[in-house]
Amino acid sequence: MRGIRTGGRSARVRAAVLAATIEEFVGSGYVELSIEGIAARAGVNKTTIYRRWADREALLVDALSDWSDSTVSAPDTGSIEHDLVALTDSVVDLLNSDLGRAVVGTVAAARDRNPELVDATMRFLAARGELVTPLVLRGIARGELPVDTDVAALLATLRAPLYYRIITTGEQLDETHAGESVAVALAAVRAGLLRTPDAGQST
Amino acid sequence: MRGIRTGGRSARVRAAVLAATIEEFVGSGYVELSIEGIAARAGVNKTTIYRRWADREALLVDALSDWSDSTVSAPDTGSIEHDLVALTDSVVDLLNSDLGRAVVGTVAAARDRNPELVDATMRFLAARGELVTPLVLRGIARGELPVDTDVAALLATLRAPLYYRIITTGEQLDETHAGESVAVALAAVRAGLLRTPDAGQST
Repeated sequence: MRGIRTGGRSARVRAAVLAATIEEFVGSGYVELSIEGIAARAGVNKTTIYRRWADREALLVDALSDWSDSTVSAPDTGSIEHDLVALTDSVVDLLNSDLGRAVVGTVAAARDRNPELVDATMRFLAARGELVTPLVLRGIARGELPVDTDVAALLATLRAPLYYRIITTGEQLDETHAGESVAVALAAVRAGLLRTPDAGQST
Repeated sequence: MRGIRTGGRSARVRAAVLAATIEEFVGSGYVELSIEGIAARAGVNKTTIYRRWADREALLVDALSDWSDSTVSAPDTGSIEHDLVALTDSVVDLLNSDLGRAVVGTVAAARDRNPELVDATMRFLAARGELVTPLVLRGIARGELPVDTDVAALLATLRAPLYYRIITTGEQLDETHAGESVAVALAAVRAGLLRTPDAGQST
């Protein structure tokens, strides 16, 4: 019974279902997220959804990935500092959004209780995090960063103060917070920290 | 009907109720936390609890504060680096514990939904955070830190990578993570960052 047409209508249905999934997730949270609710919001039949996605986790992963792909790209300003500030500004924008708060709140609360959901949100965060890799590679090529810079450690250092604030104080973030994160991360790099474990440990 | 005796028995009842509160909170989570369950676990009547605490939030705040007071003290090694490592090791121990994970998971999930609970857990985290103040003051007195070091910013820089890891990967933390946090925070201080907003801004 699989549809043969894969052109315009199929793409429109997919976009509508993914958008409805994000809206339901933000509005109702993960516990209340249902294929029924998504289908109703998207104006399609449940069977249309089940034909394409195995379950709501798979659908949520797809929706989050799609949303992320469509909203951010890796900056390329010619300077590692400016690139990192631009990228971290986009992290701030995400964490200030209803979707970003839903993702972070969900992953924190679901840990130890819902591995599929943790996996879905972690894959979203990992996909977003991959944007930092080309920035770091270009920074290394320009001689701004050591060749053994640990991309994951740098990303964690950029993100951590922002996540910490979101979780503990719940305050809105702004460009000042992004700038502070970048300044601390670059100070750490210049002090010989944030290097891959196999080389150049400073302690 | 308030009890007149405030000696040994009263202190024992208080200790039993506070310990039972922590155990119930860790075991069942905040949603399931009830005065009935705490009373049963502590072996006291509900009225004994209501005579001393207005509600379960007040009881939880008291229990968390009491637990914190009894488990940590501010280190004093004569060196800011060693003091911060010792203090951050105790943060790692807390975040690795069932109680620490319950507190962080709860505060992240309860944000926007349960202000009293957020307040209870935030007061606990703030009380723990105050331990860094004497360390910083001694570091300033010894000339190891600038006089305008921002205590709150330093604390956030120490804690943030640990909270970030707990929330995103759920991994157990160890002394390496504590050491890395301290190294990054001190690199930031030496680069002129983490200063109070009124003075010595570096950007």
